[in-house]
Amino acid sequence: MSRLERYGHGGDRVTASELFGRDPDSFLDFSANIVPFGPPPSVKQALKGILETERLPVITQYPDPRSRRLKALLAERHNLTPTRIAIGNGAAELIELILDVVRPSVVGIVYPAFSAYTSSAKKRDIEIVPLYGEEESHFLPPVERLCELVRKTDLVFLGYPNNPTGLRISFDELKQVAEEAIRCQTVLVVDEAFLDFIPDGERMSLIGQIESYPSVILLRSLTKFYALAGVRLGYAVASPKWVKRLEQRQVPWSVNTVAQVLGEAALQDQEYEQRVREWVQQARMSLRMQLSRIPGLKVYPSETNYLMVRLEREGKTAAWLQEQLGRQGILIRNCADYPGLDERYFRVAVRTDEEHERLVKVLKQCLDQDEEAASS
Amino acid sequence: MSRLERYGHGGDRVTASELFGRDPDSFLDFSANIVPFGPPPSVKQALKGILETERLPVITQYPDPRSRRLKALLAERHNLTPTRIAIGNGAAELIELILDVVRPSVVGIVYPAFSAYTSSAKKRDIEIVPLYGEEESHFLPPVERLCELVRKTDLVFLGYPNNPTGLRISFDELKQVAEEAIRCQTVLVVDEAFLDFIPDGERMSLIGQIESYPSVILLRSLTKFYALAGVRLGYAVASPKWVKRLEQRQVPWSVNTVAQVLGEAALQDQEYEQRVREWVQQARMSLRMQLSRIPGLKVYPSETNYLMVRLEREGKTAAWLQEQLGRQGILIRNCADYPGLDERYFRVAVRTDEEHERLVKVLKQCLDQDEEAASS
Repeated sequence: MSRLERYGHGGDRVTASELFGRDPDSFLDFSANIVPFGPPPSVKQALKGILETERLPVITQYPDPRSRRLKALLAERHNLTPTRIAIGNGAAELIELILDVVRPSVVGIVYPAFSAYTSSAKKRDIEIVPLYGEEESHFLPPVERLCELVRKTDLVFLGYPNNPTGLRISFDELKQVAEEAIRCQTVLVVDEAFLDFIPDGERMSLIGQIESYPSVILLRSLTKFYALAGVRLGYAVASPKWVKRLEQRQVPWSVNTVAQVLGEAALQDQEYEQRVREWVQQARMSLRMQLSRIPGLKVYPSETNYLMVRLEREGKTAAWLQEQLGRQGILIRNCADYPGLDERYFRVAVRTDEEHERLVKVLKQCLDQDEEAASS
Repeated sequence: MSRLERYGHGGDRVTASELFGRDPDSFLDFSANIVPFGPPPSVKQALKGILETERLPVITQYPDPRSRRLKALLAERHNLTPTRIAIGNGAAELIELILDVVRPSVVGIVYPAFSAYTSSAKKRDIEIVPLYGEEESHFLPPVERLCELVRKTDLVFLGYPNNPTGLRISFDELKQVAEEAIRCQTVLVVDEAFLDFIPDGERMSLIGQIESYPSVILLRSLTKFYALAGVRLGYAVASPKWVKRLEQRQVPWSVNTVAQVLGEAALQDQEYEQRVREWVQQARMSLRMQLSRIPGLKVYPSETNYLMVRLEREGKTAAWLQEQLGRQGILIRNCADYPGLDERYFRVAVRTDEEHERLVKVLKQCLDQDEEAASS
């Protein structure tokens, strides 16, 4: 584990502050995949609303243990019954609850993958069967291998799109895997935390046909797309039976009222959604082009709001680059701790044009200085 | 399980709204034990501070995975090293983490007790050895029986003071039990969620001698005393070894940034603390006196901000009373679902004089009408 990812993830400004001796809020953070101009204005309005109440009931009273208002809004949005939705303290909580409820003996993970699948399984001493994607196919596994993984395990985690690669298998392939999961009674957890960033993503999801896939659990997140990472908010869509078991297993009141209220507000701002989807297409393309022009960087394609990059400079690692950038107040995600990747990989979030400019400038400086040092 | 406590606890205004057809915010809630005039003004200031930042970093950025600032404040307050403190998404999360980390085969619970001890153990299929207090001694168990429970189990939960009774064993007795726990290598979880309400409570805690009690885990809560129930915030004090294992087991970012920031603010308001401790003595005494004067109610003594009461009216239950009061917009906690109590027990929080007056008036009406109906 690299030093900035001491606790297993990006976006840790307090550790960054300890490492680089700067104020935590001063960093330009490309290590966490959060919309840079969020949250929706409706969230700020909701916060004002909390403050305007005389006795701050949102702060002082116990949360609704079942987030019923938020659930109703999500049910309406996805045209589902509320009994198919479980709200979580971030998708991270739901990943752990799923393991506690399904109790798989063997879990399949498609690497490289979001680290919480692995850490949550390891905490529970669950055996992991890995499936490694190939660099040549941008780490996307062939559907036959995925079906094989489904046959060999009790539960499979699949990023759709995947983190840190930003890519996904096709919808047809997903359906094949989901059908295999039904046949083998394997639980297929499709992590759609970043699906909102894909235009028409909702149509590429099994969410519209969830009744036909009783073995499938979908995970969604509000923290990236709506920039609510600080309050934590995610949900699972599954059969009512699984939802009930997830909720019964959950820590009482694990989703606090502020998260519920801000989530409700975020979902009501449709202009924001449109804006984010348009922004991410253009901004990702622009960042990818700029990074690709820097000698020594291989930038992978992505459908989401982050890009995976490989540093191709002899003897240099992503950890080295992270250190150089960190000293200048810029954070990137070192991907060396992702099984299936090596010490050359890192990930950057898509942000604003000005922020891209700063990143590119500092990246070039670091790499130019390194080249000069090497050739002198 | 009674209907209002559908999810195992009091303070559920959404369920109350469904049952009694009133706006959730309109209820006068005696079913949750929260300081009625909180939170401290510093919390409102901190909320304003969140709103005044340009990009709402408290909302948009990932939480510090280890709540380091809050932990430092608590360490200073209790004169401990931060390595002895684990922050939780409410004490409820810590109760579950403790079971996941200690992995006891047999848990001892002193009934009647906070329901989360039982539900958390049951979720994990852990055997429970109950110890029932006697009504004659206000449900406080003799120290010999407690020591026996410690000898027979791997982990014991002890409310200090206890919920729903509001009483605790003496500090000397607590030390005896803790010493027995060391001898038997049993983990003793002392739940001090309501200890802040006792003047000089800190001196009645093992927190100052925690180094001498490696088998003891103390639980504290910020949600009741500081009226932060909506954001969830608790902490455990234990050996650095246990703290590390609790944190490693925890869901990533389980304590959100709003909870951390408001908790930090709350701890800095010492005037509030003084005010709450003075208020609770006087207000509890006054409420107890008023309730005791109502024929058909037996009110138990308490050291905290709630009172346990027994309804002594033939054929009438706490559920009946809860229903009568609920229709008039007042919530009480039916204690029928606490093992060791029966359908006559209920609990009311200590609140303001005006609120007590309303409770007493409506209580009297209900009981008078019942008496008239009975005698007619």
